[in-house]
Amino acid sequence: MDINEKSLKLHEQWGGKLEIVSKCKVNTREDLSLAYTPGVAAACKVISQNPEEAYRYTIKSNTIAVVSDGSAVLGLGNIGPYGALPVMEGKAVLFREFGGVNAVPICLNTQDTEEIINTIVAIAPTFGGINLEDISAPRCFLIEDRLKELLDIPVFHDDQHGTAIVVLAGIINSLKLVGKKKEDVKVVVNGAGSAGIAITRLLYTYGIKNIIVCDIHGIISSKYPNPNPVQKQILEIVNKEDRQGTLMDALICADIFIGVSAPNIVTADMVSSMNKDAIVFALANPNPEILPDEAKGGGAWIVATGRSDFPNQVNNVLAFPGIFNGALKGRAERITENMKLAAAEAIAGLILDSELNENYILPEPFDPRLCDAVSEAVMKHI
Amino acid sequence: MDINEKSLKLHEQWGGKLEIVSKCKVNTREDLSLAYTPGVAAACKVISQNPEEAYRYTIKSNTIAVVSDGSAVLGLGNIGPYGALPVMEGKAVLFREFGGVNAVPICLNTQDTEEIINTIVAIAPTFGGINLEDISAPRCFLIEDRLKELLDIPVFHDDQHGTAIVVLAGIINSLKLVGKKKEDVKVVVNGAGSAGIAITRLLYTYGIKNIIVCDIHGIISSKYPNPNPVQKQILEIVNKEDRQGTLMDALICADIFIGVSAPNIVTADMVSSMNKDAIVFALANPNPEILPDEAKGGGAWIVATGRSDFPNQVNNVLAFPGIFNGALKGRAERITENMKLAAAEAIAGLILDSELNENYILPEPFDPRLCDAVSEAVMKHI
Repeated sequence: MDINEKSLKLHEQWGGKLEIVSKCKVNTREDLSLAYTPGVAAACKVISQNPEEAYRYTIKSNTIAVVSDGSAVLGLGNIGPYGALPVMEGKAVLFREFGGVNAVPICLNTQDTEEIINTIVAIAPTFGGINLEDISAPRCFLIEDRLKELLDIPVFHDDQHGTAIVVLAGIINSLKLVGKKKEDVKVVVNGAGSAGIAITRLLYTYGIKNIIVCDIHGIISSKYPNPNPVQKQILEIVNKEDRQGTLMDALICADIFIGVSAPNIVTADMVSSMNKDAIVFALANPNPEILPDEAKGGGAWIVATGRSDFPNQVNNVLAFPGIFNGALKGRAERITENMKLAAAEAIAGLILDSELNENYILPEPFDPRLCDAVSEAVMKHI
Repeated sequence: MDINEKSLKLHEQWGGKLEIVSKCKVNTREDLSLAYTPGVAAACKVISQNPEEAYRYTIKSNTIAVVSDGSAVLGLGNIGPYGALPVMEGKAVLFREFGGVNAVPICLNTQDTEEIINTIVAIAPTFGGINLEDISAPRCFLIEDRLKELLDIPVFHDDQHGTAIVVLAGIINSLKLVGKKKEDVKVVVNGAGSAGIAITRLLYTYGIKNIIVCDIHGIISSKYPNPNPVQKQILEIVNKEDRQGTLMDALICADIFIGVSAPNIVTADMVSSMNKDAIVFALANPNPEILPDEAKGGGAWIVATGRSDFPNQVNNVLAFPGIFNGALKGRAERITENMKLAAAEAIAGLILDSELNENYILPEPFDPRLCDAVSEAVMKHI
C-alpha cells in the first residue's frame, strides 16, 4: 500500500485527527456547579470587567485558530474549505504535538478578502492567536496586514513567515559552512507568491541586500508585466540595478538559489553558471526545481529541499510550534521581524559548528530542544 | 470558601477548561507523512471532489461550534464575548462529558444580527452542527431561522429548544402523576423571551392547546404594548380568547405555571388561585419565581426549578448532549419538531411509573442511560 492509500485509510479510521477533551471532570453535582453554573459566573464577571483576564481564566491563553479558505492547499491549488480540512487538522496536530498549543481548524466558506477579514475579527475573542494557512497570494498579504491592524493578538501566515524563518535558518548555517558573508552574497529567489515574497523580505531584514526575485515571466523589474501590488513593492528592496531577463540569466554568478516555484525548472548547467560553492534550496514540493544529485552534479555544495527523503528538509514545523508557544506564553500582541530573526538564529544555533556539514544544516523536526529554543528566542523579543 | 470563590480559583488552575489533543501520534517521519504532508493530500483530493466525504475523513462528523455573542449570558445579561467564554467552555465540557461530542467555543466580537449570521455561515465547513447559546431575544429567533435556511447542518439554539425539551419532559411526567390530560390543561407561561417562546411552541406542538403567555406588561394579547415580531406571531397559537390582564389574572384556574422570568414574582396566594393539583415550574435562576416550599404551601403538587439543590431540576444538560450525539451520528441536516418531541418523551420515559413521584419527575443529569436514550430517539426521526 503506498503512502496515499495508507494515509486515506488511516484518516477514515481516525474519523477526524483531533479530539476536544475536558480538563475538568464532571462526575458530581458539585463538579457541575464549579465548571458550569452557577459557579462559572464568577469568572464571567471578572472577565467582563476586564477582558484581559480571559488570559487567566480561559482557553484563550493557549488556543489559536488555524484558518484557511482552501484557495492554495499544498500543491493541490484551490480545492475549497472542505478539501482543506484534513490539512488544517494536520496542522493542528502538529501545533499540539510539537508546540503544546491548542489549535482549532477553521475552514472558511468564502474566498472574499473582506469577508475573510470580517469573519476572523468576529471569532477572535476565543483565540490567543491566528495562524493563517494556505490562502493564495496576493490576497494573503492584504488579509494578514489588515488583521494585524485590527486585532491585538498575533496573526501569522505560516506559508509566508514559517517558510521564511526556516529558509533563513538554513541559509545562516549554509553561509557558515561555505565561508561566505551575508553582505557579500547574491541571492536569486524564484517564485513571487506568499513564500517567495516573505523569504525575500526576511533575508533582506537579516542583512542580505543583493537579491533578485523571479516569477513566471522572469526577473521582476520595472518592466515586469502586470505585477501585483506586492510584487511592485518588493522592487523597493530587490534588483537595485533593474536587471531584466530570465531565471537562467539571473542565476549567472549567483551564490544562492531559493526556489519556491515549480518542478524541474533548474538544470545542472544553470547551477554550473552560479558562483563557486553554490547553495541551492529547491523547495517546490513534492518535486523540487532540481533534484539534489543533479544540483550537486552542477557544482552545488549544499542542497536543501522540502522533502523528508532528502537531507536538509526545509519544514515549517521547525518554526511555527515554537513561534506560537513563545508568543502565547509571552502574551505577544504580534510576531515582529525581530522575533522571526531570533527564531531563525535559534533554529540554526541548535547545530554545533562541529556537527555542521552539507547534509546537516537544519535540525530534525523531532529534535526535542526545538520548541523551547524557538519559544525562548521569541519571548526575548516581546 | 463559597462556590464562586472556589470556581474562580479552579478556573485559574485549569487555565481553560478544554484541551485539543491529537488522535494520531507523530513520533516518526512516517507518522508525519501520514497525518500531514504528503499523505494527507489523498483525503483532500477525495473530499474536494465530494464535500460529503468530509464526514468520513475529518472532525466534521463529530464536532460542533458553541457560538455566542455574549448578549444574554446566564443571569448576567449582556457581558460581551470575553465574559461569555467561561460559559461556552463549560458548555463544551458538557458536550464532551455527557454527549461524546467535540465542541469548540466561539465567542463573537459582534452583536449585529447580519454579521453573526455571516460569520457562522463562513465558519460552518469545519462543523457538523451549530449550537447557539446565550443570544438575546428577539435576535436569537431571526438568527436561528436564517441559519437553518442557509446551512445544511443542524442549528440549535439551546436556550430555546434545550429548555423546551426538558420542560416538556417534566410536564409529560407531571401530567401522568396528577392524572390530567394534555388536551384539558390550561398553561400559563411567564416570560416571552427565547425560552418562553420555545416552550410555548413545543407544548403546543405536543398537543397542549390552551396556553397563555405573559411578559413584563402582563398577558400577551392583541392589546399588548410594542410586541416584537415573535411575540406577535405567538398570538396565532395562544390566548385564543384574547384575554387581557396581569400574570395574577392569568393564573386563576390555571393547571400549570411555567416561569422563565424573574425572582419572587409569584406568591402562595397566586398558586392557591390555580386549579387543584397545580404544577409549578419556577425556572428563574438562581432565584425562582417562587420557592418550592411557598408554592407547596399554596397548594402546588409538583414544583420544579432550575436549581440543583431542590428536587426536579430542569437542566438543559438532560437534552443537548444526546440531541447532538444523535443528530451527528444520524447525519441529520436539521433538528425537527418531531425530534424534539421524541427527545422529551425519551427523557420522561427513563422514569418508570413505579418510580414516578412529585420529587422525581426528571432523571438525574448523571443517569448513564440519558445520552443514548435521547440520541436514539432523535435518530429514529431523521
